[in-house]
Amino acid sequence: MTAIDLNSDLGESYGAWGMGDDAAMLAIVSSANIACGFHAGDPLGILKTVKAAAERGVSVGAHVSYPDRVGFGRRDMGVTSPELTADVIYQIGALKGVAAAAGVVVGYVKPHGALYNRIAHDPIQGQAVIDGIKAIDPDLVLMGLAGAPILKLAHKSGLKTVAEAFADRAYTAGGELVSRREPGAVLHDTTVIARRMLQLAHEGTIEAIDGSTIKVDAQSICVHGDSPGAVAIAQAIRQAFETDGITVRSFLAA
Amino acid sequence: MTAIDLNSDLGESYGAWGMGDDAAMLAIVSSANIACGFHAGDPLGILKTVKAAAERGVSVGAHVSYPDRVGFGRRDMGVTSPELTADVIYQIGALKGVAAAAGVVVGYVKPHGALYNRIAHDPIQGQAVIDGIKAIDPDLVLMGLAGAPILKLAHKSGLKTVAEAFADRAYTAGGELVSRREPGAVLHDTTVIARRMLQLAHEGTIEAIDGSTIKVDAQSICVHGDSPGAVAIAQAIRQAFETDGITVRSFLAA
Amino acid sequence: MTAIDLNSDLGESYGAWGMGDDAAMLAIVSSANIACGFHAGDPLGILKTVKAAAERGVSVGAHVSYPDRVGFGRRDMGVTSPELTADVIYQIGALKGVAAAAGVVVGYVKPHGALYNRIAHDPIQGQAVIDGIKAIDPDLVLMGLAGAPILKLAHKSGLKTVAEAFADRAYTAGGELVSRREPGAVLHDTTVIARRMLQLAHEGTIEAIDGSTIKVDAQSICVHGDSPGAVAIAQAIRQAFETDGITVRSFLAA
Amino acid sequence: MTAIDLNSDLGESYGAWGMGDDAAMLAIVSSANIACGFHAGDPLGILKTVKAAAERGVSVGAHVSYPDRVGFGRRDMGVTSPELTADVIYQIGALKGVAAAAGVVVGYVKPHGALYNRIAHDPIQGQAVIDGIKAIDPDLVLMGLAGAPILKLAHKSGLKTVAEAFADRAYTAGGELVSRREPGAVLHDTTVIARRMLQLAHEGTIEAIDGSTIKVDAQSICVHGDSPGAVAIAQAIRQAFETDGITVRSFLAA
Repeated sequence: MTAIDLNSDLGESYGAWGMGDDAAMLAIVSSANIACGFHAGDPLGILKTVKAAAERGVSVGAHVSYPDRVGFGRRDMGVTSPELTADVIYQIGALKGVAAAAGVVVGYVKPHGALYNRIAHDPIQGQAVIDGIKAIDPDLVLMGLAGAPILKLAHKSGLKTVAEAFADRAYTAGGELVSRREPGAVLHDTTVIARRMLQLAHEGTIEAIDGSTIKVDAQSICVHGDSPGAVAIAQAIRQAFETDGITVRSFLAA
Repeated sequence: MTAIDLNSDLGESYGAWGMGDDAAMLAIVSSANIACGFHAGDPLGILKTVKAAAERGVSVGAHVSYPDRVGFGRRDMGVTSPELTADVIYQIGALKGVAAAAGVVVGYVKPHGALYNRIAHDPIQGQAVIDGIKAIDPDLVLMGLAGAPILKLAHKSGLKTVAEAFADRAYTAGGELVSRREPGAVLHDTTVIARRMLQLAHEGTIEAIDGSTIKVDAQSICVHGDSPGAVAIAQAIRQAFETDGITVRSFLAA
Repeated sequence: MTAIDLNSDLGESYGAWGMGDDAAMLAIVSSANIACGFHAGDPLGILKTVKAAAERGVSVGAHVSYPDRVGFGRRDMGVTSPELTADVIYQIGALKGVAAAAGVVVGYVKPHGALYNRIAHDPIQGQAVIDGIKAIDPDLVLMGLAGAPILKLAHKSGLKTVAEAFADRAYTAGGELVSRREPGAVLHDTTVIARRMLQLAHEGTIEAIDGSTIKVDAQSICVHGDSPGAVAIAQAIRQAFETDGITVRSFLAA
Repeated sequence: MTAIDLNSDLGESYGAWGMGDDAAMLAIVSSANIACGFHAGDPLGILKTVKAAAERGVSVGAHVSYPDRVGFGRRDMGVTSPELTADVIYQIGALKGVAAAAGVVVGYVKPHGALYNRIAHDPIQGQAVIDGIKAIDPDLVLMGLAGAPILKLAHKSGLKTVAEAFADRAYTAGGELVSRREPGAVLHDTTVIARRMLQLAHEGTIEAIDGSTIKVDAQSICVHGDSPGAVAIAQAIRQAFETDGITVRSFLAA
């Protein structure tokens, strides 16, 4: 029987400001990437989301970021390696503490936003992130972009990894994400997206933007929940999987 | 043989800004109250201080605070209980993560500044702090002002506590600290302070500001390190203890 | 002909997080209390809102706050007077700069949240706010709660003031706001609220919660826009005023 | 008679954390680059420094930065142009407000740290800074690195500029600063530095690191004050100028 993980970014409210529909997404996904306070997430909001994930049996991961709340962690930053390593340790530690209070454990780490994009290819910042994860808990799994060099770097450092695909993004023939600046980079058609994800789950392939079929070796699929349309897409994928006999299950449960 | 703990507030630098002489103080004290990022302490600075404490064999405690960096946690804040509980969990978790990276554990929690003063007598915020500590790790010890109601409240909640005295502060006949607004509230004479702390260690008493002798039941003494004069006082106390056969040892080692 | 001011809290988004419907409210109110960055508002968001207010001809006021973003300025803080005076100067200055870039001027100052409530009755923090306003621009008008001591304190200090009533709040027979903890403190019935505001505009009176009629000397009415229901209430008041021949006009235009 | 400006970075304390010796430097320099809160400077500290500058008759400039307090503005950030323009407006506005409270005006703008280095050569972020300055006050002067493209870009945009040299830095034969990573990049010998600055003031030239003489067209010299050694260098330059009949005077007074 085929099984796959669905992950989503959650806990991204901040104080009086809400973001996304955490309750709706926790009914859909098997893994929750929880903001750790650097790009989003205040302690009380994080605690509420982790408790809700715990009740749903959804796996909890640390969504670590550059320290840039006003920019939501979306802006590249020239941090030094020691700074980045310490920032990663601090954020994972904070989420581990919140998870302990909710009776669960943090199982994986997924860098957020600009940090995610940077370390996909930058071995210096990538190694600093890896060093931070290993320093606090070498059993944590690093979630990264399927096919990106960061996954090999992590393996070489003795870290387990999980590769993810993006449900609503187009891929180049080379297996990379089409830049958001290009036309067609982001997909919106619920039916098309669900069909693509079925193909990914069954065959490990995706149709690239040029029509070719590429191999994407992913154990998790990232879905978004920051708009009603995004939640609908996530629901459609989940429903297509269930209809087709694909189990949605955290990669940690494998 | 008599033994007592010396504790001090450390890790209070922030980014490019330094504060105190952590290296000097780690050679003197047996317990380090480490800033957790809310009133002071950036991840890299915290990590460095915890590593230095680990090398010295100094116990590590979480110096949790209101979220008020610009006010250094010295301003009273009307936080709600759920907010405060979550803030405490988050900060302890972050420091636990840093401690794990340094190969040590966090043994106790000491609230900082305005929060310390507030919970000494406020059972609402006091309970919120206690709830946070118990939620993340019920084996943590709460450090509080000798004689203050917070210690009884913590006991009633099943939390271990350690009471501390302040080396450089005058006491009222009722056993409370003389307010800093009163004359004579802060002591500066190294010899006088060392003699008072010897009496405290040997007999469990301090001479109050009115000349009477009061009982102070403290297992730890707080010394400061934020100025050259403060470091000198701490050194004098340590030296007086060693000369007099009093072992300086973390209360956690008892 | 009768005229009255309608004011609302705007510019309260922060980075990626939105709050309220600024565009809808700018079509209704004559005065916009703009967040200055301490409880809400990032520079780009503030700039956009001030530009939109400028296009609508809506007066701009500085909605100054305690430095407490995660608490949205809703938590009482024990700031010192010099700190508070400087915080007020800094925030007003920042908004004046943004207003200059938008081709308008800041006409008034309305403290936000916990600071608003605190200075209504606390002459120490109240004077610190007044001192800050006078230091940067003594022509600025202070907006405060109708009937509260802060308005007299401001007059005594040579500052112009404008008193405001709250459209959706019940009043005691003594002319104070009914505490939010009491039943009936917040009104929700659009028709009732509009009728009460018509009475206020025409006669300067409001029916208190005990049925008595009290005098409320207000030149401005505060309406909220942080929910669809709140926008609907504001629209109903505006429409009732226009139907009844009451001009909605900034108190600064008087 | 020859005159030149000496400028220094001041107001860089933050809350309880001090930095540099503002009082000593205000006795030496003619222009003070005042932190605006984004990399350093809390409102009360900024106010005190601007008041001290006002008493000394020292010109006040806005030392604007990326929003990165924990990194002291020293880390490159991929901010968008609208964000950067608004950030610049906000910071200049805040400092203008503080200056008004101190009875003086802000005369110029000097970007700080990583932003300074980035815009020296990056026309996109450079234009965003220029747009911010022009939007709030087109009479403000932009201070930038002598010889860098940003000065021409500012001129083209109709902004006045002032070029500065760095007293304690070595120059390449091409007129650029030697990278701090290279040996000899930072000068420490007080006598050598003072002699170099005399040559710069008299002849507009500096000896490059390869021994050649290069033209440096600077109306201001940047001196540091963040260590006792730095203050001593600044004093030596000032004294050498006075001995040699060179007037130290703000470029704004020209």
